[in-house]
Amino acid sequence: MSPRSIAGKRRDTGRPAGTSPRSPWKPLQQRAREREVKRDAVILAAARVFRQRGLHNTTLDDIASFLNVTKPTIYYYLTSKEQIIFECFRAGVGRITAVLAELAEAPLRGRDKLTRLVEGYVEVMATEFGWCMVRVEDHDLSPAMARRVRALKSEIDQGLRRLLRAGIDDGSIQSCDVKMTAFALAGALSWIGQWYRAGEQLAPREIADRFMELFANGLKPRAA
Amino acid sequence: MSPRSIAGKRRDTGRPAGTSPRSPWKPLQQRAREREVKRDAVILAAARVFRQRGLHNTTLDDIASFLNVTKPTIYYYLTSKEQIIFECFRAGVGRITAVLAELAEAPLRGRDKLTRLVEGYVEVMATEFGWCMVRVEDHDLSPAMARRVRALKSEIDQGLRRLLRAGIDDGSIQSCDVKMTAFALAGALSWIGQWYRAGEQLAPREIADRFMELFANGLKPRAA
Repeated sequence: MSPRSIAGKRRDTGRPAGTSPRSPWKPLQQRAREREVKRDAVILAAARVFRQRGLHNTTLDDIASFLNVTKPTIYYYLTSKEQIIFECFRAGVGRITAVLAELAEAPLRGRDKLTRLVEGYVEVMATEFGWCMVRVEDHDLSPAMARRVRALKSEIDQGLRRLLRAGIDDGSIQSCDVKMTAFALAGALSWIGQWYRAGEQLAPREIADRFMELFANGLKPRAA
Repeated sequence: MSPRSIAGKRRDTGRPAGTSPRSPWKPLQQRAREREVKRDAVILAAARVFRQRGLHNTTLDDIASFLNVTKPTIYYYLTSKEQIIFECFRAGVGRITAVLAELAEAPLRGRDKLTRLVEGYVEVMATEFGWCMVRVEDHDLSPAMARRVRALKSEIDQGLRRLLRAGIDDGSIQSCDVKMTAFALAGALSWIGQWYRAGEQLAPREIADRFMELFANGLKPRAA
């Protein structure tokens, strides 16, 4: 047994490793970090169970039992099933908007930014969150939550359109109906969440390459 | 009041127009036809209510009250909510497979067939059934019904792939990953059911044109 795991054992004697001898509780910052890690674990587990059983058939008990904890433990991190659904949605969307934010500053032409976005988008849709992102539906959410979901969807849509317009402006993407093209791209990409099964398909990067073969040749530079 | 509506009024007196005086019931064939019309009306109404309230929140009472009838009337035409959901799905898919069947015999190159398919596909996704087609989910169906849904989805997928392969063979579509291209096209097209609102958007034919601008330039003839 390693010294580390022996040190871990000391918890049972009343004083966790690394804490002040004056207090059996961990420092505030560490607790906040650990709470964050556990909250994320709940969200990830939920995304997996949702995918397996469907959004409607999944109970908080299912998510709790997947994690070998009780339902009150889940409630310690998230207030309701609706909030969990929303967080699964946000986890995926957040990664796509992060890519968009990164690309906004990148010294690249619109067409190359689109390639990067497609790569990032496919990668997200192939995660546990991809399926939830496709299945979250306004009708299943409170009006306030539905508004937040719509706002996040709109953020992606607007980012995608900005990117297409930038490409049209710098000549790397040919003139097109930006709104309809953004809808077509987002549809093709989002739908991956519906059909993707890890291990059974191409890797996300290969899917992105195939998709870009289709999209990019349709988005020719003006000069071509 | 037209003679027709006057004739209709005779129903109230106990003998419907056009029936044999020996029987107050309509001929068998006419009854079967009327039953079919009413069954279709239930399915169409259901698609509308599902779209408004969501698949899960909709009850058979909602559908009945939309049609100003009672729930037993609905049960006279369809056996369960699950069957109604399935019929909404099938109504949309059926129109797409009809287009595919028509195209199989048409003396057209693969690329032109694809254009026709995209036009037909967009048109279906813009109907009341488009939204249901996107939202129907295996988890919400019995295993037997889920199998039927998967079989219909696969029929469209296989048809789309056959069409792409035909285009590659006749040189009107450039060589591509047929499976991934079919997935990308089906995703872009299916997603229309998610965002389309009649009246607020372009007409289906205009959407199809915009989508084909993107797809077709990406699916260049070998010679180009």
